[in-house]
Amino acid sequence: MQPDEFRRIGHEVIDWIADYRERLGDLPVRSRVEPGWVRSRLAPLPEQGEGFAELLADLDRVVVPGTTHWQHPGFYAYFPSNASLPSVLGDLLSSGLGVQGMLWSTSPAATEVEQHLMDELVGAMGLPDRFRGGGVIQDTASSAALVAMLAALHRSSDKWRETGVSGDETVYVSSQTHSSIERAARLAGLGEEAVRAVEVGPTLAMDVDALARQVESDVDAGRKPVLVCATIGTTGTGAVDPVREIAEVCARHGIWLHVDAAWAGPAALLPEQRALFAGVEHADSFCANAHKWMLTGFDLSLFWTAHPDVLVDALTILPEYLRNSATESGAVVDYRDWQIPLGRRFRALKLWSVLRWYGLEGVRAHLRGHIELAELLESWVAADEDWELVAPRTLALVTLAHRSGDEATRRAMEAVNAEGSAFLTHTVANGRFAIRVAIGAEQTREHHVRAMWEALRAVNGRPSS
Amino acid sequence: MQPDEFRRIGHEVIDWIADYRERLGDLPVRSRVEPGWVRSRLAPLPEQGEGFAELLADLDRVVVPGTTHWQHPGFYAYFPSNASLPSVLGDLLSSGLGVQGMLWSTSPAATEVEQHLMDELVGAMGLPDRFRGGGVIQDTASSAALVAMLAALHRSSDKWRETGVSGDETVYVSSQTHSSIERAARLAGLGEEAVRAVEVGPTLAMDVDALARQVESDVDAGRKPVLVCATIGTTGTGAVDPVREIAEVCARHGIWLHVDAAWAGPAALLPEQRALFAGVEHADSFCANAHKWMLTGFDLSLFWTAHPDVLVDALTILPEYLRNSATESGAVVDYRDWQIPLGRRFRALKLWSVLRWYGLEGVRAHLRGHIELAELLESWVAADEDWELVAPRTLALVTLAHRSGDEATRRAMEAVNAEGSAFLTHTVANGRFAIRVAIGAEQTREHHVRAMWEALRAVNGRPSS
Repeated sequence: MQPDEFRRIGHEVIDWIADYRERLGDLPVRSRVEPGWVRSRLAPLPEQGEGFAELLADLDRVVVPGTTHWQHPGFYAYFPSNASLPSVLGDLLSSGLGVQGMLWSTSPAATEVEQHLMDELVGAMGLPDRFRGGGVIQDTASSAALVAMLAALHRSSDKWRETGVSGDETVYVSSQTHSSIERAARLAGLGEEAVRAVEVGPTLAMDVDALARQVESDVDAGRKPVLVCATIGTTGTGAVDPVREIAEVCARHGIWLHVDAAWAGPAALLPEQRALFAGVEHADSFCANAHKWMLTGFDLSLFWTAHPDVLVDALTILPEYLRNSATESGAVVDYRDWQIPLGRRFRALKLWSVLRWYGLEGVRAHLRGHIELAELLESWVAADEDWELVAPRTLALVTLAHRSGDEATRRAMEAVNAEGSAFLTHTVANGRFAIRVAIGAEQTREHHVRAMWEALRAVNGRPSS
Repeated sequence: MQPDEFRRIGHEVIDWIADYRERLGDLPVRSRVEPGWVRSRLAPLPEQGEGFAELLADLDRVVVPGTTHWQHPGFYAYFPSNASLPSVLGDLLSSGLGVQGMLWSTSPAATEVEQHLMDELVGAMGLPDRFRGGGVIQDTASSAALVAMLAALHRSSDKWRETGVSGDETVYVSSQTHSSIERAARLAGLGEEAVRAVEVGPTLAMDVDALARQVESDVDAGRKPVLVCATIGTTGTGAVDPVREIAEVCARHGIWLHVDAAWAGPAALLPEQRALFAGVEHADSFCANAHKWMLTGFDLSLFWTAHPDVLVDALTILPEYLRNSATESGAVVDYRDWQIPLGRRFRALKLWSVLRWYGLEGVRAHLRGHIELAELLESWVAADEDWELVAPRTLALVTLAHRSGDEATRRAMEAVNAEGSAFLTHTVANGRFAIRVAIGAEQTREHHVRAMWEALRAVNGRPSS
């Protein structure tokens, strides 16, 4: 494809996306296809090339009906994954440049724009100064948790790089911690038995006394605690672990404290929400996903550590073909040593596009709008005779259940999901089946939330008000 | 940004990329900036939003001068990373859709298009039928190697998931194997001492007798061999390990055979190159990077395993909030269980765009063109009085050195790199400093290769012919 063809077809693709975003709200949120429906409609790979119009036609014919629309205003499932249009254009520029940022020398701008943004966000998010110079973009919070664990293992033993894990290491989560931490322990060779699921209190936040007891009992038994993961905004209900108190336990025992704020983290941009982040100044590492709730398309997970030297030392390996004078000068950062993969895209461009187009005030307005919608929903649920909150609202996540039991809750969720204008997912909180309403799509407005709520209410017999 | 603004600005961004690709060949391949140059020119994050024109202006002012141009026709460094324009548009569509393919149910088309392409490529690349249903897109070959190792560890012990690595496991590479395998062993908790670097023969391919001896010696010593990585096209010189003979050793001892063809793999599309891939039918897993030499922008690594059940069982974890009826029916594939991260982009779209726009014949022509250029360069080097090949040419990789020694070779490489119209990197092969010429940029033509060669020849005293 020559640049002139690209110009013409590229404009068509841009228009296709604009059209898609304009009509998005009229599509059912969840794809309704059966397993195999998409595949049965796909042609074998052509021997001879074809036009781009054929691909776009297949998008309309097969892909759009086979897609669950994460940008839909009625998407309340999982956590949001908002891909704003400036972010789309920033990523397009990254694809167009087609550079590899694995080393500083393989594309200095890719590294230095990223360093700049990560340091600027330390200030904008009220993060501790010890994170300056320790920021890097990871693909996901799962990978961030894994690199944090590897750094913690390396710090805990000067033999880890050479002889591997000892079999004595232990890792601490709560029953509400994201599964990626347990999975990271498995991948790092510790096994799931090394993971202690600490009890939670009634708000589903980690019980610090239980943590302290478990750590002491493990130490007494000759085990070696290496990492605690505290969560600000758990996946199930948005619970917030007491980071400051957890940090004290970690400090006493030399344990790496990783704070997972994958979803809630962007709210640190709001001065009025900073109390949620108390204690983060003591964390060894911290993660917040710009691709969840900071208008930036997947994949862009913000990760900071106060110990980049430990992280780099844990992950680095320098074969001959990657040697270069800039690296050897020590004056540059080579981000390949901060992550699992070797190669890396110029991901910072999409974050830069978002932060410049909206400005910090624009991003804050986006977050505040969603929080206000969640407060509204919370007030409606609290005032309802049939429904109740099963956990305190956190930011823009509301967790609710029907008072008459799990069956009614599930029936309401499934009916709304089947109707198509909203998509909800569930959790089990304090033993109850509960609907999670995670507000965060860019186009979601009050009338969408109200319609979803009225639809839920209408399922178990009460007429819509 | 509203869809109408996106339409207007998106056309400008497309045009910016078209302009960039048109003028690319006139820019110096390598960025000439000093560490800190880019950063010192960046503004703090704005409180209020600004126009997209300001970002594009900064791209021209700061990013382009700070970029090493991987799409440049004079880029021969590392391995190619060609991001063709149809691939750019396919990835743009993925960003525009903004869907998450972590589960089948979170976007059926993202999963089924990927399954379709991976199975179609099994046929087109002459891969064994046992890979059908076992294909998945990974971000990089490093991650592919890590998941292969995790699957191998799981297969080697039914206790690995619960209790972790035993400390007895061993892994086999050659001195020429990519560093990502040794790094994967470190990340998986085995430690570097678990990695055996098997001797190579004069062509720098793994010595199978040495491998067999090492495995037997380890088994006798009570160690547990879990994985051998064979490479088709090593990073240093393109050496090809004897996969078939290595597979026999693996079969005797129940060892997982991972074949890394990250760069050379796309050449399996060429019937006349299939001999290079002999023995791959016995591999437990195989990796080829579409983002190196298959016109598809980073990141898109093709990974197949003959044992997807083992891989999934090694990596799966199912918390309540990801439960859904499609997963529980067993009728679908959830690709989150096949990779390190949880979330995933609709990456298959960019591969689909490439394969449909060029057709298989178009991709083959692209590969053959580069191989022909490398054959030409090989013939020039072989006929030269001052230069010589230090390893046999493989496909489009030529490794050469000045006959008068490392200093002359290095001086020539550095002079050419400083001049700016070509970018070369080096390796150390059989103890000699050698220049690697990896031909693979989409725009590279004979006159570019000839000019680079004449420039190399001119450095150490001989006039250009």
